[in-house]
Amino acid sequence: MIEAIGIDADDTLWHNEVIFEETHARYCELLSRYHDARTVERTLYATEMRNLELFGYGIKGYALSSIETAIALTNGEISAEEIRAILESAKGMMRHPVELLKGVTETLAALADSHDLILITKGDLRDQHRKIAKSGLAAYFAHTEVVAEKDRKTYARILDRCRVRPAGFVMVGNSLKSDILPVLDLGGTGIHIPYLTTWEHEKATRPEQTERFYQIDSIGELPDLLARLEGRS
Amino acid sequence: MIEAIGIDADDTLWHNEVIFEETHARYCELLSRYHDARTVERTLYATEMRNLELFGYGIKGYALSSIETAIALTNGEISAEEIRAILESAKGMMRHPVELLKGVTETLAALADSHDLILITKGDLRDQHRKIAKSGLAAYFAHTEVVAEKDRKTYARILDRCRVRPAGFVMVGNSLKSDILPVLDLGGTGIHIPYLTTWEHEKATRPEQTERFYQIDSIGELPDLLARLEGRS
Repeated sequence: MIEAIGIDADDTLWHNEVIFEETHARYCELLSRYHDARTVERTLYATEMRNLELFGYGIKGYALSSIETAIALTNGEISAEEIRAILESAKGMMRHPVELLKGVTETLAALADSHDLILITKGDLRDQHRKIAKSGLAAYFAHTEVVAEKDRKTYARILDRCRVRPAGFVMVGNSLKSDILPVLDLGGTGIHIPYLTTWEHEKATRPEQTERFYQIDSIGELPDLLARLEGRS
Repeated sequence: MIEAIGIDADDTLWHNEVIFEETHARYCELLSRYHDARTVERTLYATEMRNLELFGYGIKGYALSSIETAIALTNGEISAEEIRAILESAKGMMRHPVELLKGVTETLAALADSHDLILITKGDLRDQHRKIAKSGLAAYFAHTEVVAEKDRKTYARILDRCRVRPAGFVMVGNSLKSDILPVLDLGGTGIHIPYLTTWEHEKATRPEQTERFYQIDSIGELPDLLARLEGRS
């Protein structure tokens, strides 16, 4: 018996990583006078990981790490104008329209009729609330949870608050690390929908267990899979 | 009958605004070759307000607005090294120890025995969770809510989720604008504890109503006031 369905947002409901990648390409271009793209990429990622504990996820932390990396990689030769370009680029990401993945609206509309849907997304409060508002999807969700980290403890807290037993919880998302593994660990069901591309930090190996773990190609396949899990077809 | 007590965090449980003011003084010093402190202050505040919708509250947004303002106020003459100093200053704020206000621990320990306490704080998820963890106060709270904005709608959502009626809700905090006015508006009780200093953006005039609105000088006076409200003394 499914009591609630948790659904991830970035790269599950709408495109996100590709927007970071576009911005990142412009950033590499900006620094191309100093270093090749691979060095820039490697150094920025190392800075982001070093700052993760302090900054958390989201565009603001990405922007601060980008500025820090640009200063370091140019030995302070980067101009104020170029730093301003990095700032503007971050604002551009925030203002970016929300582009839904194919089939999202129809699928949520169908599922919300018969199930409690919980939007569970990691990142910056302001970024995420803005995207939820822009997406036009808010009304399909019984609850919305923007969390600092998607680990077992976070899921346990959400389920406790929503009075859902782990065995009755299904989580759907594109990240094995954040959406699937902690939920399987808790005793819930994980449905993985891989996205086009995965941020280095979110990469994880597939779980060894096959019980309660499913993978589909697109969100449009979700209603049929859930019906099968509920023994309705 | 009090069903739950909401408690604000920054400048109600621990010092916050003074840390911003220390950082701000260093920032004005950094730019003193170019402009007097008043111009710097006015321009930074205008930048913060312009960016508020995109950045929200918290140290990361403050840091990005500080960098943007420094570039603008120096016509791009600020050096990368000086921008690095602004970044380091922001990290220093994040790493700053949490300094509790006087009487906080004893008061929460006493209240948590008899009441459901809800920590309700506005700002950046990562900043706030870090401070809650460092404060050693987490165990006193039945729920913790980090929200993007403290308005009537947010309080209504929290009360709904915690199954608390507005008439049974008491909110305690230092900001009339964020902690008191929206809760009075909803039909709850507001207890204002002014802090040493108030950020420009949080300034508000005292509510006209006297019903369900109280003011005390320090959190240590809270148990007595609550006992009076509950007719226990």
